[in-house]
Amino acid sequence: MAAALIVGAGDATGGAIAKAFAREGYTACVNRRARNADQLEALVKSIHAEGYAARAYPADARIEEEVVAMVDAIERDVGPIEVAVFNIGANVNFSILDMTAQVYRKVWEMAAFAGFLMGREAARRMVERQSGTIIFTGATASIRGGSGFSAFSGAKGALRMLAQSMARELGPKNIHVAHVIIDGGIDTAFIRGIHPDFEAAKAADGVLSPDAIALQYVALHKQHRSAWTHEMDLRPWTENF
Amino acid sequence: MAAALIVGAGDATGGAIAKAFAREGYTACVNRRARNADQLEALVKSIHAEGYAARAYPADARIEEEVVAMVDAIERDVGPIEVAVFNIGANVNFSILDMTAQVYRKVWEMAAFAGFLMGREAARRMVERQSGTIIFTGATASIRGGSGFSAFSGAKGALRMLAQSMARELGPKNIHVAHVIIDGGIDTAFIRGIHPDFEAAKAADGVLSPDAIALQYVALHKQHRSAWTHEMDLRPWTENF
Amino acid sequence: MAAALIVGAGDATGGAIAKAFAREGYTACVNRRARNADQLEALVKSIHAEGYAARAYPADARIEEEVVAMVDAIERDVGPIEVAVFNIGANVNFSILDMTAQVYRKVWEMAAFAGFLMGREAARRMVERQSGTIIFTGATASIRGGSGFSAFSGAKGALRMLAQSMARELGPKNIHVAHVIIDGGIDTAFIRGIHPDFEAAKAADGVLSPDAIALQYVALHKQHRSAWTHEMDLRPWTENF
Amino acid sequence: MAAALIVGAGDATGGAIAKAFAREGYTACVNRRARNADQLEALVKSIHAEGYAARAYPADARIEEEVVAMVDAIERDVGPIEVAVFNIGANVNFSILDMTAQVYRKVWEMAAFAGFLMGREAARRMVERQSGTIIFTGATASIRGGSGFSAFSGAKGALRMLAQSMARELGPKNIHVAHVIIDGGIDTAFIRGIHPDFEAAKAADGVLSPDAIALQYVALHKQHRSAWTHEMDLRPWTENF
Repeated sequence: MAAALIVGAGDATGGAIAKAFAREGYTACVNRRARNADQLEALVKSIHAEGYAARAYPADARIEEEVVAMVDAIERDVGPIEVAVFNIGANVNFSILDMTAQVYRKVWEMAAFAGFLMGREAARRMVERQSGTIIFTGATASIRGGSGFSAFSGAKGALRMLAQSMARELGPKNIHVAHVIIDGGIDTAFIRGIHPDFEAAKAADGVLSPDAIALQYVALHKQHRSAWTHEMDLRPWTENF
Repeated sequence: MAAALIVGAGDATGGAIAKAFAREGYTACVNRRARNADQLEALVKSIHAEGYAARAYPADARIEEEVVAMVDAIERDVGPIEVAVFNIGANVNFSILDMTAQVYRKVWEMAAFAGFLMGREAARRMVERQSGTIIFTGATASIRGGSGFSAFSGAKGALRMLAQSMARELGPKNIHVAHVIIDGGIDTAFIRGIHPDFEAAKAADGVLSPDAIALQYVALHKQHRSAWTHEMDLRPWTENF
Repeated sequence: MAAALIVGAGDATGGAIAKAFAREGYTACVNRRARNADQLEALVKSIHAEGYAARAYPADARIEEEVVAMVDAIERDVGPIEVAVFNIGANVNFSILDMTAQVYRKVWEMAAFAGFLMGREAARRMVERQSGTIIFTGATASIRGGSGFSAFSGAKGALRMLAQSMARELGPKNIHVAHVIIDGGIDTAFIRGIHPDFEAAKAADGVLSPDAIALQYVALHKQHRSAWTHEMDLRPWTENF
Repeated sequence: MAAALIVGAGDATGGAIAKAFAREGYTACVNRRARNADQLEALVKSIHAEGYAARAYPADARIEEEVVAMVDAIERDVGPIEVAVFNIGANVNFSILDMTAQVYRKVWEMAAFAGFLMGREAARRMVERQSGTIIFTGATASIRGGSGFSAFSGAKGALRMLAQSMARELGPKNIHVAHVIIDGGIDTAFIRGIHPDFEAAKAADGVLSPDAIALQYVALHKQHRSAWTHEMDLRPWTENF
């Protein structure tokens, strides 16, 4: 059975993407750090409860050995990875004067280096089969370095260039690499906590629905190869941009 | 019955978009210049032959009165325009030294000014109903002024700015405005004539399929408003970019 | 004596650019519409008063015959045009619903079509001599279609694509084509009238000084051809972007 | 005496920038790794030989402690750092399939993380004095992820976002942050070795002159604060782009 790998299945978006690919017949192979393995199991159970296939692959996506081992295990135990989605964010906001080297490095490791590791490992398998889709989740910070976002925007900018570079190299090998710029708050526990008027915004579709995002990821995967999208944005109708 | 207006339904792309929206239950209202009204009727007949609804609206999209009259007629005779697609191209390539003022102006009138006229007239109706989708067809020239493309790229750049400006104004009024950057040859009579190895490229999905493009336009229209795309690219898997 | 042509020498920016090139030893050939010929003469006199060379060339830059005649006259009466600067703006802001076809067209004619006419005529002379600099004045609207700016942003986007296309074609012919994105209010009579706190902003260097802009245009012209700039932005230190 | 810090003064570009600021009256404080301290001393001597001030500061720019110590030493021994230039490149080209985690990380540490360290330390001093200029050297890879450039483009993209973020935060504090996109081969030993026809290209100004680049860096520093440039490109007149 073919596998869809979702690295960074720790938030509502990653969970919705996993479910959406499971509904398409893939075994959703969901990843997040081992210390949150409970939540990963809960996600797997919720997919099973809908009658679809899923497996948990707790691993630290920043560590090469763990990523290699995870991809090996999926290919051995589940089947070929036909879709790989990188969905780890690391949104922090500090004055450049207060940004520590530790945080700057960690944000890059989470949001860019881990993307490289997943992307390379997925590409290595897909190139052999000359087939597959790799999707990277971007943000407004991918294309705009806002004040206070030196680390997050730097990591997201690096991830976008990775996606472009991979798309240019791998497209002619029949690997579809796409980058989705999500602009706006998503309906997650995190946003719920910081949004001044979350319920009203959600009721008016003013925050991105994880399910709506997930549908677009599936649609990217299903595009006919004569008309592939490399980059698209997603934002609520009410969002300023 | 709701209408989908396709301005520039003169090539394979416009025809495929018209059919795709007809299949979704819209009356495809197809436009091109009156002097090619025969081909417009042929398109309408081919949609009727599939069992779907279509009507021909020959008009010069560069002339304000004709666009206003066309939109009025559709709204009166067919129903509310829920989708409006602008698909007129005008790809010419001349050295800047040889570009005439006539050609430079005509390219802008076809590829940008006509887009403004259609966009404004569609927006005026849609804003009253607080609902609708407006899609503009772009090209690589929309974002890159290549040597020899002063007129085409200028017009496409203007159209892209129009789309952005309308998206920012009309999004919060529940009008979805999108711009699709098509990068690569499309399977049309025009490309068939100039492509060095068309049949081989087409067999390998190396030219954009009009139907594949059309599916993406329909998908844009169907996006949930919590996750609207303003801009996306479409290119064959083999295309350099 | 070599000439520097400034089309759109009607505001403080164009005037400062004219003076700056006059100080470099060029005859500043200044253009604006004939109905404002008095102000053009005043500019010429102020340059003469500094001991530098200048001549007025009133003409409607949107009319091909007038532009051709102006360039012919300068080359005949003054000398080779070594620098040509296009500086006509046309900043208007209307809802897309209220934008008239007349205004949309006029803004394009002023801010884009006139740029094409000047650019082509200058290029035709410079290519024969394999030498020259052509500079186009851009704005934030050149790269961002803001709400209400469908016409202005469309024209500015077209002008930017023109500049790119000309740079790619003419660079290898030793013609330096550059595009300057000016982001922020300039110290002009227009801004003075609409800025909420102009004097304080000006005192704090929060509005662009026309002389500071002009220095950059001269610097572009003087760049060594091993390191030419095609695009640069200019904004006050206090400007949000 | 005021200091101009050049991090990455290991190639012809960094050396030329150091000399250019020394000629402006700054003590050029030049940095590269300790293992190449000999070449750093040679650069210092060549500046002294011209009658200008310079000091060598060998340090590993990827190591926080070394960067902090270097900046402290300059401020204590030379004077306030009024200009800081980051000029470390790390251009490598590998298939994504062959890119190692070690190389991917090292390229980021050299071309992005070191830029953050220098940028933050310079900013901390400059903000106290509300004055200073920070310039980052970019490349085409800063805005385009080419095939094979996943690491280099990722690092350069991250550096560009850092520059943007710092410009937006620090501009209103009177710190001028700029990013220069250098597009084309520079006249360095490295290019000399790989360019198919270096001497002919150089004779025709087809490779960037380090001195021409350096002049632009000085010009950025001298811009009036009412008209600051954040980003500009530099390329030879013959370069395709």
